[in-house]
Amino acid sequence: MLTLKHLPITSFNENVAYLHKDCVAYKLDDIKFMTKVEIHGGAKPIYAFLNIVDDESIVSPDQLALNTEAFEQINLPEGANITLALTPPPPSVSSIKRKIAGNILSPNEYQAIITDITNRRYSNMDIAAFLVASGSFMTPPEVLAMTESLVGNQTISWDNEGIVVDHHCLGGIPGNKTDIIITAIVSAYGLPIPKTASRSLSSCAGVADTMSVLANVDLDETQLKKLIAENRGALVCHSGLQIAVANRLISSVERQIGITQQQHLISSILAIKIAMGITHLVIDIPVGPNSRIKTTQDAMRLRKLIEYVGDQMGIEVDAVITDGSEPIGNGIGAVLEARDVMKVLRNKDDAPQDLREKSLFLAGRIIDFDPKLRGGQGYFVAKEILNSGRALESMNRIIHAQGKAPQPTLGHLTRDIVASESGYVESIDNTRINRIGVLAGASQNPGAGLDLLKKVGDKVEQGETLFRIHSMNSIDFGYANTAVDGNNGYVIAHH
Amino acid sequence: MLTLKHLPITSFNENVAYLHKDCVAYKLDDIKFMTKVEIHGGAKPIYAFLNIVDDESIVSPDQLALNTEAFEQINLPEGANITLALTPPPPSVSSIKRKIAGNILSPNEYQAIITDITNRRYSNMDIAAFLVASGSFMTPPEVLAMTESLVGNQTISWDNEGIVVDHHCLGGIPGNKTDIIITAIVSAYGLPIPKTASRSLSSCAGVADTMSVLANVDLDETQLKKLIAENRGALVCHSGLQIAVANRLISSVERQIGITQQQHLISSILAIKIAMGITHLVIDIPVGPNSRIKTTQDAMRLRKLIEYVGDQMGIEVDAVITDGSEPIGNGIGAVLEARDVMKVLRNKDDAPQDLREKSLFLAGRIIDFDPKLRGGQGYFVAKEILNSGRALESMNRIIHAQGKAPQPTLGHLTRDIVASESGYVESIDNTRINRIGVLAGASQNPGAGLDLLKKVGDKVEQGETLFRIHSMNSIDFGYANTAVDGNNGYVIAHH
Repeated sequence: MLTLKHLPITSFNENVAYLHKDCVAYKLDDIKFMTKVEIHGGAKPIYAFLNIVDDESIVSPDQLALNTEAFEQINLPEGANITLALTPPPPSVSSIKRKIAGNILSPNEYQAIITDITNRRYSNMDIAAFLVASGSFMTPPEVLAMTESLVGNQTISWDNEGIVVDHHCLGGIPGNKTDIIITAIVSAYGLPIPKTASRSLSSCAGVADTMSVLANVDLDETQLKKLIAENRGALVCHSGLQIAVANRLISSVERQIGITQQQHLISSILAIKIAMGITHLVIDIPVGPNSRIKTTQDAMRLRKLIEYVGDQMGIEVDAVITDGSEPIGNGIGAVLEARDVMKVLRNKDDAPQDLREKSLFLAGRIIDFDPKLRGGQGYFVAKEILNSGRALESMNRIIHAQGKAPQPTLGHLTRDIVASESGYVESIDNTRINRIGVLAGASQNPGAGLDLLKKVGDKVEQGETLFRIHSMNSIDFGYANTAVDGNNGYVIAHH
Repeated sequence: MLTLKHLPITSFNENVAYLHKDCVAYKLDDIKFMTKVEIHGGAKPIYAFLNIVDDESIVSPDQLALNTEAFEQINLPEGANITLALTPPPPSVSSIKRKIAGNILSPNEYQAIITDITNRRYSNMDIAAFLVASGSFMTPPEVLAMTESLVGNQTISWDNEGIVVDHHCLGGIPGNKTDIIITAIVSAYGLPIPKTASRSLSSCAGVADTMSVLANVDLDETQLKKLIAENRGALVCHSGLQIAVANRLISSVERQIGITQQQHLISSILAIKIAMGITHLVIDIPVGPNSRIKTTQDAMRLRKLIEYVGDQMGIEVDAVITDGSEPIGNGIGAVLEARDVMKVLRNKDDAPQDLREKSLFLAGRIIDFDPKLRGGQGYFVAKEILNSGRALESMNRIIHAQGKAPQPTLGHLTRDIVASESGYVESIDNTRINRIGVLAGASQNPGAGLDLLKKVGDKVEQGETLFRIHSMNSIDFGYANTAVDGNNGYVIAHH
């Protein structure tokens, strides 16, 4: 019997238990290779990864300490009595072995795996093993089974709404912030659009990062429901909502190992949207040589898979294939992207037209979901809403309702990258531009990023600025400068 | 700039860095999703998994704390100045993605992955991803490349020896402790046999566990070399030797996720033996329905693969396929297995004959490596050495040289499992017997285990004891009793 202590340490979604090396109740020799323990004493056993401590001020020999993740899960006060048991790998690991051996798993097997993940019976290592094992080969019914399992029991329902819409972009295109403009247009039209988005790790700005420049995005379910009832639209970070818990744990591991399989991405997106109570969804699949999806064939396969899973799950999905050959808009990085968004909403002359047109096109597809509207009218309705200023009004209402953010400043360390010869911009490499922007400090610093003054097709003179780097500190600025001197991502053609 | 602190926490081979949530040098927002950091200040950067702390007594805002693994690696005193950088996934992760996509990796790619693992650039999650990605499909040249990479630079050489021999069993058979008897016989013959073994997690006793009952097995390279020079034989735990570091990190992850692929197993075994300077190796491949290798075809495939890698690496390997249909000897668990070993070495009448014969057979194959001996004489030479008592003398010398262990006691909580009907023992299920033994407390408690009084082919009367459970404490004893009542692993036939 040990007494419980809370160590205020967070370990990025991993439960960790700390035991003193001279623990009175368990001989360390007994657990020398066993790193996962089952902790009894709460409403149900919880699982944690074991660390051994040689310092009584951290944990004494008659205590078991838990990190914040595990302490919240066990839901007992400090000083409570608990006992330990060694725990073998969870039974569903046998399904992972079957998957490694090339088998197709049953829906029950996916359910068992996702339940074990939700209950934190999987360490992050176990989750990584599952992701890689299933990632290389999943049949459409397997993707469906995984999606169903990920949705879980905790879903949001919108009792008084007929249809509830949303949009998601499969991503990989720097500067893509259509979501915010779409939310403004669609909510102005009157369809409920409880848009959830995430912050970014590997790109210059996630939609939630850009929205954070304008408004508070960390809202809970009650607040979100109030916002939708009042304004029809909201754009919040989905980590604040208690939905699809296993998906969050899985995404965290995907981020950390830097590997995301397309089937998992589709399961994850659809599961979140279904758990959010979305009934009608537009998915944007951008295709380009430096986009996440490289060929139209790949995009078609993804679209079929998305439609299959969507159909089976009872959500109407319109998956549209778009041009992902170059960055969208001019700004890359949260502050610069928010500037572009507001220019479009304000119908400014210098608003990026590609961003405006793409947003209108996708908002139109969403508005077309409205059964009251004659087919194919969506785009024109969207355009009228934007041109008339009603989208801007809606956006201002949403910002006010979510809570206006303190405007972060744009990075003051700047460098203009100029054309080394005259000609036309033939191509801009998304991957390279994203890399330079990340090195410049985006998305970690909202004010860091790139401002693209020239886009594909533009004429340039030798010495004219192609784009401008913005950094908040000299270390990031140095990294970006070194990278840009090697390859700035622009190809200039002579005709 | 932060100052370094050591937190005396061990995290099972994972480097962990602890940063206060109000860290003065780095904004937590900047690292909100980034969990891996690069720490500068030592001879070269080290990598660690990041935890966030909200308690100044653990780490203050101007400090960075490292767990024991990371602190040892950075090799700086507490209070040293260090800086942090965020680190993206290591470049070799792109090879893991290529492997997931079904490609064959080049030797350079394996080299890059193993180097990153050795330098702790891979978190345990990353290692799990690599293992699963490569586990499902590896060509023989890939297994070779992985083996070569795992050997590394740190190898042991035996300058004055012509041939250096060893034996390894691919495992999965409860009670298999031929290694100790083989070491005694072969060293008595005069061939140098620096046998390394491991402690067990998932079975009732590893060879190092059983040897620990008799002698100290935690010796370093210098001590091992002295032992071999003086006694020709030694049996030590390989975790004390600084060889094949990446392999140790990989094995630790395999244990924790409970998944070991055969190709990795072969790479691992051969890499350790080659790093140990072994020139001639016998590998025992036991086959049985409840063994790790289930069919002769599987065993033949493994043998071919082992011989291919061994040939290319310049180590002579004799891979022999043996019967793995039932446990070997009578005792299962370290103390009981050590008892069996000593009975065989002492030529006792009640010594288990299957253990004696298997040990003689394998020791004979090793002795056959000696070019001075006429082919096929090994078995008879081994038998003469055992019968004459020279193997026992050699064993006693080895025990004395390594340091005699304080004899642990046999578990005093016992229960006899009796035959419910009369007949013959038709089969004994290795997996079930192992499970009951582990629940009884083996290998955590050397004194816990099972004593098999009846083996396959033995006649039994109703009520006669089949095997006896030994436990050191009532909790383990309860687990074993519950398990044995469901299925005791024995099948009794009437004829």
